Amino acid sequence: MHIELVTIGGELLNGHTINTNAAWLSQQLTHLGMHVVRHTVIADEIVEIEKIFLEAMQRSPIVISTGGLGPTIDDLTREAAFRVCQSTPKPLQNSIGAAKGALYEEKQSALILLPGVPREMQGMFEHEVLPFLKEKDSAKRFACCRSICLFKEREVDPFLRQLQKNHPHVEFGIYPSQGTLLVEFCGSNRTELEELCSKLESKYKTFVFKEEKIAEALHSAFISKGKTLALAESCTGGAVAASLTALPSASKFLLGSIVAYCNSWKESFLNVSSNTVDEKGAVSFEAVEEMVSGLFEKTDADFAAAISGIAGPAGGSSEKPVGSIYIAIGKRGEKTDIGLVLAPSDRASAIDFSVKTTMAALWRRLVHNKTTFQP
Amino acid sequence: MHIELVTIGGELLNGHTINTNAAWLSQQLTHLGMHVVRHTVIADEIVEIEKIFLEAMQRSPIVISTGGLGPTIDDLTREAAFRVCQSTPKPLQNSIGAAKGALYEEKQSALILLPGVPREMQGMFEHEVLPFLKEKDSAKRFACCRSICLFKEREVDPFLRQLQKNHPHVEFGIYPSQGTLLVEFCGSNRTELEELCSKLESKYKTFVFKEEKIAEALHSAFISKGKTLALAESCTGGAVAASLTALPSASKFLLGSIVAYCNSWKESFLNVSSNTVDEKGAVSFEAVEEMVSGLFEKTDADFAAAISGIAGPAGGSSEKPVGSIYIAIGKRGEKTDIGLVLAPSDRASAIDFSVKTTMAALWRRLVHNKTTFQP
Repeated sequence: MHIELVTIGGELLNGHTINTNAAWLSQQLTHLGMHVVRHTVIADEIVEIEKIFLEAMQRSPIVISTGGLGPTIDDLTREAAFRVCQSTPKPLQNSIGAAKGALYEEKQSALILLPGVPREMQGMFEHEVLPFLKEKDSAKRFACCRSICLFKEREVDPFLRQLQKNHPHVEFGIYPSQGTLLVEFCGSNRTELEELCSKLESKYKTFVFKEEKIAEALHSAFISKGKTLALAESCTGGAVAASLTALPSASKFLLGSIVAYCNSWKESFLNVSSNTVDEKGAVSFEAVEEMVSGLFEKTDADFAAAISGIAGPAGGSSEKPVGSIYIAIGKRGEKTDIGLVLAPSDRASAIDFSVKTTMAALWRRLVHNKTTFQP
Repeated sequence: MHIELVTIGGELLNGHTINTNAAWLSQQLTHLGMHVVRHTVIADEIVEIEKIFLEAMQRSPIVISTGGLGPTIDDLTREAAFRVCQSTPKPLQNSIGAAKGALYEEKQSALILLPGVPREMQGMFEHEVLPFLKEKDSAKRFACCRSICLFKEREVDPFLRQLQKNHPHVEFGIYPSQGTLLVEFCGSNRTELEELCSKLESKYKTFVFKEEKIAEALHSAFISKGKTLALAESCTGGAVAASLTALPSASKFLLGSIVAYCNSWKESFLNVSSNTVDEKGAVSFEAVEEMVSGLFEKTDADFAAAISGIAGPAGGSSEKPVGSIYIAIGKRGEKTDIGLVLAPSDRASAIDFSVKTTMAALWRRLVHNKTTFQP
């Protein structure tokens, strides 16, 4: 079923807000097997809103708008919908805020008005819109998703091409994201989709996690196994800890992170020897190994990870170019797994890649007891 | 001058990617005084792309598209533009990647094709598109922006309303963002805009920073003053350090952050007394004060900040509800400034608010030598 999204609000058109509502809704709708064909963003101007509603309803059987339902004079969405629609709207309840949504079932098309505040919009979508869409979606398409760590990306690609040849009626989506890969199969035959997932899962067993994000997978694996984690971060600057603590209940497994950005902190807080720093450098196999040992000496963590690298733009050399990232994954009482990976050379991507690669290697060690960098 | 943005790519319509390109371009164009009137996202399908190009060029004198210029068969933007335009395209150089852009100057409208990779798109916009737009923009509108810390938001609002009454030809934009407030004046009279900025600056002197983001303001202030910073983070989980280290050269001032997520780390790494933790709690005035003292004892930082709070959803009590955030700002040798702020009650906003409030209070202490929480 084709769906269009309309986002209303001047704060998007001047770039102060990023359109996360459209991304969230698109993800939900795609997972339901629906087909989002267009996003449009326009200002809070009644003539513009009326025009886009009419256009979108001519093109698509479902139109969902977000934004412009508040009590201020700028919010004209409700008025515009009232002007262009013939039917009586069904009110949609808001369990969090005051702004009610509305659903118009016109002859050709349904127009659904949701609030712009993300939490309110998400709640209303789940409780009020989802049941309506499921009922309306007589085509009964189903989608199924799995994610895979990037380490094997080169191998995964030809394998997926082969699968695709054998399943011409299934849509394949392949979405790489700095160190992890999301593979998505969409089609009308649920059994076929489940079969594809099983094939991929059994081939790449120790790389496949169920959650959409590696941070979520690691978080729930630590909690379910009842183990604890300590981190020592240099080039990631606290970003590994920040992504794990963004999820509730991180205190159930994460003891903390020593963000040792300067060399002297690596020595004083993590027992890295000054010899190592002077001779091998703070960005080296030896440094990350000692950072992990330091964490095990100073804390009672079951697992430990350390990251030190050159995120750039400055600091690179011919021997260690920008993007050189050293990672150590430790399990108490066992040999530490240490690796050098080459991250993309722009700073933001290098940090993101380091964070995800560290989490993926930790996850494999925790869940499958596999090392990632060394045999 | 009215501008429309068209973003091409299926990864946006299924929600795997958020449309940051449209936000970035909108911000740049708004700062130039231009008026972005619509964003549209469509799939990589040639008929769809042709249709949207024709529609957008009928509505707006400038249309900028991103995405769909790569070498793969999915990328059909160039072909679609070629089909709908009459004029000979001018190639736009790409200083980073291989995909060239293009500029068509049709009678009614200009169509500009940029690549989808953010860094490539941004470089091409700055070097190739900006000069063209500046020349074309004969209306010579200018915009001027300033940002203000949130602490005074309640006072700022009536002051701005009064200003607005006295300057009816200036557009006022007020964008609150978890602890900071961006105020923007747009209009055609540059002198009037400069005057408005001066009025706001002189009224809220110690709250006004020039950079768009508080992290950038703090980063450049520390570097220009040659001072160093140590952090101790609990509820923010490393997010303060991560936002400062996202910017290059953070190692010039940031020594590191002790992310003491569990109580025992607060004691062992930061010298917080077990008495304090037992009697006052790890989320208390006393705990954050001792965290700052611990940083000064264990490191040679000039400034230190500590944050401990209840980000939720669990952990709240009637005495300390979810959103209670204790912040301590220390300057070596001087009395530590300690405060309790109430953050929004959803976890992501609470963390973001805590990060920005801490950075804003640090900035005021560093730049203006002002305490924020205590007299």
